[in-house]
Amino acid sequence: MDYIVVEHIFLLVLVTLFSVMQNAFFAQKVEKEGRSQNVKASTLERVSCANRNCMDSYPTFLAVMWCAGLCLNQAPAAFAGIIYLFARQKYFIGYMGQTCQSTPGFQFGKRILLFLFLMCIVGIVSFLLVRYASSDYKEYVETITSAASALLLIP
Amino acid sequence: MDYIVVEHIFLLVLVTLFSVMQNAFFAQKVEKEGRSQNVKASTLERVSCANRNCMDSYPTFLAVMWCAGLCLNQAPAAFAGIIYLFARQKYFIGYMGQTCQSTPGFQFGKRILLFLFLMCIVGIVSFLLVRYASSDYKEYVETITSAASALLLIP
Amino acid sequence: MDYIVVEHIFLLVLVTLFSVMQNAFFAQKVEKEGRSQNVKASTLERVSCANRNCMDSYPTFLAVMWCAGLCLNQAPAAFAGIIYLFARQKYFIGYMGQTCQSTPGFQFGKRILLFLFLMCIVGIVSFLLVRYASSDYKEYVETITSAASALLLIP
Repeated sequence: MDYIVVEHIFLLVLVTLFSVMQNAFFAQKVEKEGRSQNVKASTLERVSCANRNCMDSYPTFLAVMWCAGLCLNQAPAAFAGIIYLFARQKYFIGYMGQTCQSTPGFQFGKRILLFLFLMCIVGIVSFLLVRYASSDYKEYVETITSAASALLLIP
Repeated sequence: MDYIVVEHIFLLVLVTLFSVMQNAFFAQKVEKEGRSQNVKASTLERVSCANRNCMDSYPTFLAVMWCAGLCLNQAPAAFAGIIYLFARQKYFIGYMGQTCQSTPGFQFGKRILLFLFLMCIVGIVSFLLVRYASSDYKEYVETITSAASALLLIP
Repeated sequence: MDYIVVEHIFLLVLVTLFSVMQNAFFAQKVEKEGRSQNVKASTLERVSCANRNCMDSYPTFLAVMWCAGLCLNQAPAAFAGIIYLFARQKYFIGYMGQTCQSTPGFQFGKRILLFLFLMCIVGIVSFLLVRYASSDYKEYVETITSAASALLLIP
């Protein structure tokens, strides 16, 4: 059974591992800023806030990505996940906000989260169609989703 | 295999999607408060603290709900999840605390989390009984759990 | 299907339940400190920071542990999870930091997270080997991993 399961989730696991590496990178960045004495306090605060904002939306991102991958197809979900990680990296590097509270971490990657969210809904609707109307559109839906995920590349 | 898996988790996925929508709603609320200039600082701080408290216990909630749904039965777990989301909404709307630290986000929905926690334990005990004592009480347990989940509606 | 799934994840579920209990313990500790009036402010702040640092890395920990358990074998993953919980407990009890920002919660249990991370990678590589090279090293790998997890006990 393990083999079958891994076949359906290994791309999701890979993206999760990348996100964990990114989390560790963010944390190390904060730690380095905190340790150096002659740094301006504002820099530390800024890095720390960017880290907090990223971590705040992390469980949401994981939940949506895994649901989308399990319900429909792992390939577009993992692809969207990778793009989200790039958006997060860009957000963290270029973070220039001063106040922590005004930016609750959902301002970047909104479109990607929405795409994953729609994937979940499409997956569940498709499952219900198969179950109650016994009409199998799943393959068409998967093809369309894979094609649509390319649209996320448009900045 | 996908079809079989989705059949056992689609209610959990739905509740997860609702919780994600709620997170986005909370985040937007904080963002709106942060952007408006003529607002009292205390309002922003209060909304921000309520959001933080909600997000702090979010991974715990997700983990317990999914474990309960996978180990025993998804219907009562998803039902308890929905009630938890209502409790969280009520908590967020009516949040009147001033200090962030005294309210670590576990004060609402304690009973629901406890119920989901017990579901997990019952599910694992039931699994071990099936495996080692080959006595299958699972159906009785599932019926009792579904009935017990109605008790969560008592305020 | 439920039965087969539970067989492969029940140790992971148990560790997740322990971690939830620990989270509740931490939250209660913070709440108790916040409620008692004659406490020094620094104590409250310290406990609150320790709690925050623990909760910050909690989703990461859960994600890595579950991925490692699903991709390779649940026993060593759950064992590493238990050790991580002990490390976290020790960190929380003995927390003496004053500033919240300098300790982003990744400083404890780095080795354990790294071990789980490697387990994921080994699991995926092993899966790809089975799929594309049809050479099944999985059993050897699982044995080696189980043995290696004992090394985590070295302080």
